[in-house]
Amino acid sequence: MSEPLKIAIAGLGTVGTGTVKLIQENLGLLTLRTGRAISIVAVSARSKKNRDFDMSDITWYDDAVTMAAESDADVVMELIGGSEGIAKEVVETAIAKGRHVITANKALLAHHGAELARKAEEAGVALAYEAAVAGGIPVIKGIREGLAANSFDLVYGILNGTCNFILSNMRETGRDFEEVLFEAQELGYAEAEPSFDVDGIDASHKLSLLASLAFGSEVDFDSVYIEGIRAISSLDIAYADELGYRIKLLGIARKTQDGIDQRVHPCMVPAEQPIALVEGVLNAVVCKGNHVGTSVFEGAGAGGGPTASAVVADLVDIARGTILPTFGIPAAKLEKAVSQPVETREGSYYLRLTVEDRPGVIADIAAILKREKISVKSLLQHESNPGKAVPLVITTQETVELAMIRALESISGLDCVLEKPNMIRIVSL
Amino acid sequence: MSEPLKIAIAGLGTVGTGTVKLIQENLGLLTLRTGRAISIVAVSARSKKNRDFDMSDITWYDDAVTMAAESDADVVMELIGGSEGIAKEVVETAIAKGRHVITANKALLAHHGAELARKAEEAGVALAYEAAVAGGIPVIKGIREGLAANSFDLVYGILNGTCNFILSNMRETGRDFEEVLFEAQELGYAEAEPSFDVDGIDASHKLSLLASLAFGSEVDFDSVYIEGIRAISSLDIAYADELGYRIKLLGIARKTQDGIDQRVHPCMVPAEQPIALVEGVLNAVVCKGNHVGTSVFEGAGAGGGPTASAVVADLVDIARGTILPTFGIPAAKLEKAVSQPVETREGSYYLRLTVEDRPGVIADIAAILKREKISVKSLLQHESNPGKAVPLVITTQETVELAMIRALESISGLDCVLEKPNMIRIVSL
Repeated sequence: MSEPLKIAIAGLGTVGTGTVKLIQENLGLLTLRTGRAISIVAVSARSKKNRDFDMSDITWYDDAVTMAAESDADVVMELIGGSEGIAKEVVETAIAKGRHVITANKALLAHHGAELARKAEEAGVALAYEAAVAGGIPVIKGIREGLAANSFDLVYGILNGTCNFILSNMRETGRDFEEVLFEAQELGYAEAEPSFDVDGIDASHKLSLLASLAFGSEVDFDSVYIEGIRAISSLDIAYADELGYRIKLLGIARKTQDGIDQRVHPCMVPAEQPIALVEGVLNAVVCKGNHVGTSVFEGAGAGGGPTASAVVADLVDIARGTILPTFGIPAAKLEKAVSQPVETREGSYYLRLTVEDRPGVIADIAAILKREKISVKSLLQHESNPGKAVPLVITTQETVELAMIRALESISGLDCVLEKPNMIRIVSL
Repeated sequence: MSEPLKIAIAGLGTVGTGTVKLIQENLGLLTLRTGRAISIVAVSARSKKNRDFDMSDITWYDDAVTMAAESDADVVMELIGGSEGIAKEVVETAIAKGRHVITANKALLAHHGAELARKAEEAGVALAYEAAVAGGIPVIKGIREGLAANSFDLVYGILNGTCNFILSNMRETGRDFEEVLFEAQELGYAEAEPSFDVDGIDASHKLSLLASLAFGSEVDFDSVYIEGIRAISSLDIAYADELGYRIKLLGIARKTQDGIDQRVHPCMVPAEQPIALVEGVLNAVVCKGNHVGTSVFEGAGAGGGPTASAVVADLVDIARGTILPTFGIPAAKLEKAVSQPVETREGSYYLRLTVEDRPGVIADIAAILKREKISVKSLLQHESNPGKAVPLVITTQETVELAMIRALESISGLDCVLEKPNMIRIVSL
């Protein structure tokens, strides 16, 4: 048996602690599967408090960057998080010192993925990030290797468990966003500062990595169109149900002749589609390859155990000698992404208006839609309350988003429209 | 760039032809992803008829074994099928000559997997078989690498698309097995000789490979308990619906303290469970790991394109230099499987009897169940037809299968029981 593989871990939060526990618990199995002994030689974290694992053979570093530079680790795990600062320094230092890097940090790779991939390749080390997308689900490996025979034109998924939990719970209980968010925070499914999750940023980080990997393009986070779930009300959820849809926050990346379309926004998905049935904190990723057709990966998208499973899967690869280009092809060959603007989307739309209940309202709205050549598919008004505010729901036939945006602007300007309209894209993938 | 990777293909049926087409269509992409040129140098098939791909640079062999021995291929693809005979000779010859082997042949590996894995390892070549289980779904890689951090105690799935199509179609149309089988044959979803599929043998081949890989044991096909779907009637499908279940042919492998339980049989699965919603020719595999929890892989389980996708995924691995032990650990370390007999199962059961409608029938049956300490959960008798045959359906609480088998024997012997009872296991995973 060759030399033990020596590991340094930066960050001992949920994921870091889960990783240490997994390695300690499954050590014999990991050695059997990789043919190598594995040894945690160094750790670093914000505070040197008592941890509930044995630290006696592990060197403590107050500073993670010093650890990345000076420990004798073969592999540095960056489990700190954040797109800049210490996490980035740890990764850069480890690469510069010729150490393999495993990271769970989607923000870092979304912002600096192409550049870090180049550096890792030049240094001849792995930059592995299975844990950065969809937690324990082995979707990076699935696309980079398992489906590597295919060219892809579509990858999409439920990439944020917090949002999926909130939307599932709103549907089950009929409650509104704020109330369910509060419960999610109590349960530990949402952060005290929830905006990375509920505003769609976390899902967008992950989507940009999937797009790079699937399409062979440089990570292009800045081009992702992002809309979170704060505007979804219990009314929207109820109308979706009535119309045969479920509302899901999807990340969708599509390669067309004109470029790459990356978007994260709430979608109305036909209720019988498999992705509509993925509930609670689960994640799912769907890929469409030119020979395999549609493949689905589903499982736990977050949490200490599942994320550690992905971190250690990368470790197993390294221990077995599987060192592949970060995004599946040599970094120098990644194409500059040409972004396709969201306005070019063709699809159907759901529109919920709050209007004053008086004669002529529907005629005014219909006239605007006609001007933009938008055909109405269904129109729902359940209540009548003359002179007062009532909800009016319209779904459209397929139209170009630009026309929809113009129509929305005009509709918002009508006197009879009392609140900002809520528009949700209807998506059938 | 290094030397081109030279390939010889044995068998040009649906999968072989699909593989040639995929390689020719995606050649540039494959070279980009692997960093190596790939070249098909030789093919062999039963007849040298005109193929709809360019054969000008490819050497034809009448005999696949001669090709495995004498061509200068680095990789031999065995896409012939069958557990013995020429397929086995091709694989053994290629390995003996130091060539990597890629096969889609579950029967061969189910019967000779451990032995062939040892030979491949001794020769230092790959014996890769992603295409042998669940077609295009990268589940072998998923378990061997993507979830390699975990110890597993359960892997199960819908492993035969023909059976899943038949059961889905029976439910949708209310028709009986024979009629739907005929349609499946017309559609090309079932073979003219359907018994490998409908009697559960194909699914059992695949299950035995998944079990070996997940549990680190030698392939033990002979221990799989096998029951096909011929006995499922439209009545059973209708009762399942009424009781809130779907009938699926599942392969289930479980590792317990006592050994490994491998079984393929029709199951009544709660209708809201994800596996119950996998319909038509789709396949799905579910793994339960000790850190990742439950992971699901779903997609196309058969067909030229999807299976070729898996064959070429193995080729990409080899081109990239990823050569791993066939069943995830060195062949010499695979444990002898200790099989756990099906009679030890604890679970609930569905029982459909055809009884004479007369007083005392239920009392007689209930007495037998009482003797075997089996509690009834529900009892359905919808028709009354004094003196004539009526269906009587019983579901039980959890009980040991041995008790159920004894009870069934006694019940079958009752005068009032007019046909062989149909028993289906209720499974909640």
